[in-house]
Amino acid sequence: MLQLPVIPPPNYIIAEEARVRQNRLTKPAGSLGRLEDLSIQLASIQGTLHPDVSRKSVIVMAADHGVAREGVSAYPADVTRQMVMNFLQGGAAINVLARQAGARICVVDMGVAADFPESLPIINARIDHGTRNMAEGPAMTRLQAEETILRGMEIAEREFSRGVDILATGDMGIGNTTPSSAMTAVFTGLPVEQVTGRGTGIDDRGLAAKVAVIQKTIRVNRPDHKDPLDVLAKVGGFEIGGLAGLIIGSAARRVPVVVDGFISSTAALLACEMLPDVRPYLIAAHCSVEIGHRAVLDKIGLEPLLDLRLRLGEGTGAALAFHIIEASVRILNEMATFEDAGVSDRS
Amino acid sequence: MLQLPVIPPPNYIIAEEARVRQNRLTKPAGSLGRLEDLSIQLASIQGTLHPDVSRKSVIVMAADHGVAREGVSAYPADVTRQMVMNFLQGGAAINVLARQAGARICVVDMGVAADFPESLPIINARIDHGTRNMAEGPAMTRLQAEETILRGMEIAEREFSRGVDILATGDMGIGNTTPSSAMTAVFTGLPVEQVTGRGTGIDDRGLAAKVAVIQKTIRVNRPDHKDPLDVLAKVGGFEIGGLAGLIIGSAARRVPVVVDGFISSTAALLACEMLPDVRPYLIAAHCSVEIGHRAVLDKIGLEPLLDLRLRLGEGTGAALAFHIIEASVRILNEMATFEDAGVSDRS
Repeated sequence: MLQLPVIPPPNYIIAEEARVRQNRLTKPAGSLGRLEDLSIQLASIQGTLHPDVSRKSVIVMAADHGVAREGVSAYPADVTRQMVMNFLQGGAAINVLARQAGARICVVDMGVAADFPESLPIINARIDHGTRNMAEGPAMTRLQAEETILRGMEIAEREFSRGVDILATGDMGIGNTTPSSAMTAVFTGLPVEQVTGRGTGIDDRGLAAKVAVIQKTIRVNRPDHKDPLDVLAKVGGFEIGGLAGLIIGSAARRVPVVVDGFISSTAALLACEMLPDVRPYLIAAHCSVEIGHRAVLDKIGLEPLLDLRLRLGEGTGAALAFHIIEASVRILNEMATFEDAGVSDRS
Repeated sequence: MLQLPVIPPPNYIIAEEARVRQNRLTKPAGSLGRLEDLSIQLASIQGTLHPDVSRKSVIVMAADHGVAREGVSAYPADVTRQMVMNFLQGGAAINVLARQAGARICVVDMGVAADFPESLPIINARIDHGTRNMAEGPAMTRLQAEETILRGMEIAEREFSRGVDILATGDMGIGNTTPSSAMTAVFTGLPVEQVTGRGTGIDDRGLAAKVAVIQKTIRVNRPDHKDPLDVLAKVGGFEIGGLAGLIIGSAARRVPVVVDGFISSTAALLACEMLPDVRPYLIAAHCSVEIGHRAVLDKIGLEPLLDLRLRLGEGTGAALAFHIIEASVRILNEMATFEDAGVSDRS
């Protein structure tokens, strides 16, 4: 039986003090909108009026999906391995955007269908060489599902021991919008076609086939929406479970987590279904083009910061959101108050 | 008679080459959404496949408004001067956000109702100590309106000679949402109440009074919507004209301009009404809470990058957008191609 940690509540007294301070800064109260709210959230999470997000880390979890054999993606499955190599060589979008944001990247193999040389800077947390084809039966065993959560929590602990102020989630896995849409349909109760999109770019026929595959996986596996681990095991993915574990482990340590796109948000929803207390630790980076994303964010109760028509994953939206989050903290920490600056408040 | 420069077109051949390159980078084509479009726009503006936005500058133009005597703002008029001093001391929101973005700030006195010591690092481009009360007659003479454009163009030249890759606009002026709403109503033809908001935070009664004041200014002055300088002179402001001149001067030098909120966008609309060819050089940073802003952006034909419920001005939204813009350029310049990385393209 999986032992889950206790999630401490954010410090609501500090939140109130941060709100008072925001109203004393030299601007009309509320005029920095979501930057003000973010700074208050971060103050309450870190338990200080001077939150700090200088040590940033993006955790990119990769895995393969047996269901890719059903032809649900525009790309061949080997691209998961190839893109992991691209991450390790620094050429992918997330490398570029993490560099810009001053964030380190940690690449985790949660279950890619290939072996990586020991010498490469990738964390081996592999459950198996890809999930089984969930159109024919459960994607993984319940024990494997529990293991993904535990390994994700271990990655959070590892980051914590290295020193980190804020984490971001990222994913790589050809076919992984399929389990994400399946899990979203199960948790939200929405029809599959309302939460299934084009992923990396399939056409209308491919989309219809993908919807049919997802409907079949749910029919074949009958996941119990009240049992989050059952949903993960039957129609999930290793990286989705790993990211949910990462989120739980981060919240347990009072570390804020920036949630990237559709796959990461599905993991966040899974984490919230397991432990609703993680929610105050989450920041939704952006709203993806992938149509299920909005439903997931609504179900969790998160409002995304950005809407730039992204649909890449990898943590790219989260890395972009780091700038906005850092801005919010700097505003709280660095702006002059009306008193300091000799500026008149409202007449 | 005001001599306006010729605005060169962006380089559409380079735009096409940048689009081809985006499609060769290791991501599904189009999956970075607006970042891809932005990088292509910047490549076409700068005329190179490797656009560079490292040298950033925020131009904050300040002025006072005679119409503030009608009680249209929640703050006393002297706050314009006080906030300029705050900018010069580094304590305002724009100082914090420009520092974060690695941008320099240039503060310009376009017509504050106070004198600043010569020793302070503020550019004196003052037209007068504030506009006249436009509820009783024209805000300025036509000659003064022309002069604001010329001085704005001179500021652009000054930045160009200092070396700059991208400019952002910012404003400070107690009461300046009032001329912005008036100009927006005139240029768009929309009813005043549809383009008039709460500015720094007036209540319902204040808002109704502000709408009535703006209706009166339009009735008293009868600005000719086909004559942009007539609109500026009768119901505008010195910083609005100055920013329009800055935008024209930047486009003439093929320098992209990041347009901040409602006041800056009104200036951008004025510039486009004078010279439609400046439009390809503009990037709309964000959508403000101020309700007239969306109408202005729609009229120009710009889609804002961010929506963070800001309503401060100063260039704060533009400084935040710098991070997104820089990300777009880095993606184009730094990502690996499918060939470089040995990643398979679509199957």
